[in-house]
Amino acid sequence: MTQFLSAIGERPLLKKIEGICRPRPATLERLKRKHRANPLVPLGDDAYVVNMATPSRLVFTTDTLIQGTHFRPEDQRRFLPESEMWKCLGSKAMAVNLSDLAAMGRVEPLFALVTIGFGGDISVDTVDNLYKGMMEYCRYFDFIIAGGDIIRSDLSIVSICIVGKLMSTRPVMRKGAVPGDVLMASGPIGLSSAGMEILERQGKSLETYEKTLLRAHLLPVPRLKEGGILAGEDIMATSMLDASDDLATSLEILGGESRVGFDVDLSRVPVHPALSSYAAAAGRSPWHWIIFGGEDYELLFTVKPSRAPRVLGRLPRAYVLGTVKPPAFGIRFRDGSRPVRLKDRRFRHF
Amino acid sequence: MTQFLSAIGERPLLKKIEGICRPRPATLERLKRKHRANPLVPLGDDAYVVNMATPSRLVFTTDTLIQGTHFRPEDQRRFLPESEMWKCLGSKAMAVNLSDLAAMGRVEPLFALVTIGFGGDISVDTVDNLYKGMMEYCRYFDFIIAGGDIIRSDLSIVSICIVGKLMSTRPVMRKGAVPGDVLMASGPIGLSSAGMEILERQGKSLETYEKTLLRAHLLPVPRLKEGGILAGEDIMATSMLDASDDLATSLEILGGESRVGFDVDLSRVPVHPALSSYAAAAGRSPWHWIIFGGEDYELLFTVKPSRAPRVLGRLPRAYVLGTVKPPAFGIRFRDGSRPVRLKDRRFRHF
Repeated sequence: MTQFLSAIGERPLLKKIEGICRPRPATLERLKRKHRANPLVPLGDDAYVVNMATPSRLVFTTDTLIQGTHFRPEDQRRFLPESEMWKCLGSKAMAVNLSDLAAMGRVEPLFALVTIGFGGDISVDTVDNLYKGMMEYCRYFDFIIAGGDIIRSDLSIVSICIVGKLMSTRPVMRKGAVPGDVLMASGPIGLSSAGMEILERQGKSLETYEKTLLRAHLLPVPRLKEGGILAGEDIMATSMLDASDDLATSLEILGGESRVGFDVDLSRVPVHPALSSYAAAAGRSPWHWIIFGGEDYELLFTVKPSRAPRVLGRLPRAYVLGTVKPPAFGIRFRDGSRPVRLKDRRFRHF
Repeated sequence: MTQFLSAIGERPLLKKIEGICRPRPATLERLKRKHRANPLVPLGDDAYVVNMATPSRLVFTTDTLIQGTHFRPEDQRRFLPESEMWKCLGSKAMAVNLSDLAAMGRVEPLFALVTIGFGGDISVDTVDNLYKGMMEYCRYFDFIIAGGDIIRSDLSIVSICIVGKLMSTRPVMRKGAVPGDVLMASGPIGLSSAGMEILERQGKSLETYEKTLLRAHLLPVPRLKEGGILAGEDIMATSMLDASDDLATSLEILGGESRVGFDVDLSRVPVHPALSSYAAAAGRSPWHWIIFGGEDYELLFTVKPSRAPRVLGRLPRAYVLGTVKPPAFGIRFRDGSRPVRLKDRRFRHF
């Protein structure tokens, strides 16, 4: 029988969550040994207290997914079993945070604080599945959920704050690109926003390529490994950000922070086969999703030209998409030698 | 002319917020000198990176206020000018987080990550005022807003994650109370929930005592100074939590974590004059709000009997409300020698 939050009450729910999140002794032992991070007050008190036994460079970020803006259960339910849907959401909430860590260089996640908000008409299983989805990333990247908050909320919400330890020599910032650098991305983009369109349309049956796009939207992969490689001494990316917004906005941000322009050659940007098929079936150009899509969580970065081949060698999915120009150049897109004029159709936050 | 978020867009809004939050060089200098915490990547990148140059015991907590559950602009507008209302909300969002730090002992806040969510129909001034309210606590307790997230959300929301540094010898946890200890509180409670009732009723005019109750609800004071004193070597509270839930729930939690019972003597609990007047005018007993109210953000703690006089000497608002008993005793309330039977009317989260 389905048990609802309104029946179980807050304290038993908290105990349940603590049960799911409680790290194994071996995990704590590793946290202590590897990072000299020894929890003094574990999950479940007013706050989490950790003893960082050595000097540390810590990385903090926070990201939130809220019903209506970032996910619509009513859409997802058409394609996913209920339990899978909430697991995916938990994993994605964690992934978007890990992606921010990745964009700073070689960072190892240490712990996360998780806030969830639900109404009383949500089942206990839903909360269970959400945390199980988050815990998958905890196990994969070897970190813990160290605390958080539960609120009653008319919209479902998952907000995570994650703390990592910087392991590279220096953080890679958004500023740092200089004219002459090469502009690159860690993988193909545009898939996630096409996947979101599929979610929103009616009908349940899916082509194989549509499944790929849907997966890209529901379960983005945080590029932590790639961020670490790009921050390494042999590549030393000069600037980097996670292209979660969309390509056009991301370039505006990178250009603004580094005070540079970009010459982007779309003919060098790979179109993922799934996106290709989707665009062909829809009779539209794939560039719309690639440029104005967003939520792909690939890394967008700049490197010295001499380092670009090394990037391509170490990250097989990476590609060059342009060069860094002086600020007066602005941001220009071209298709080989043909200039491309963009109509601004990007997602607006407000 | 009112400017709305839908007109300004995300990037200009972010720049505006960064302007409000940007710490003065002197503040950063102090952060660096006092805490050996040197921001390597400031506000505005994918993540905030800080170099903690010495071993540190860090305290992490997070708390969220969401429209509908924690505040109702439509109620507050009847009593407060629009700008004041959002400033108060910013301050309160920060206060409830600082209160969690206070409950761990002597903790100095270092920095906060702030997530806000608004719809497009919110004015830029609203966001401005919200951050101004938060910054008041930043200035008062000498810490910075180091980053965060902006989301589009159909309900207004403020979620804060705050990081502090533990300065006392050890953190004070919820477990640690033993039979024979004295149960104390840092100040009178019940005011906030009475204030919330006033907010929800119709009418605008207020008695002086009602203004006091309203203020207690809208602008709770985090007891950081008190938490520091209680964790000191000369008092060494054996257990502590922030009584944000309500007295009945807080005692359940403290009792559960410490595996003890409590003998609470209501005749020793002070009724604040404002609450007294309010209860008299309503023809009701003040105990309802005191026991089942919540959101007062006083500290509830236990100490060895020999230390209690010292607490009363150093914290003039503190009082004894009972003694710690073996777990089999349970949690019992009495009024002097008369047992009091409680009907459970507490706030339920779901």
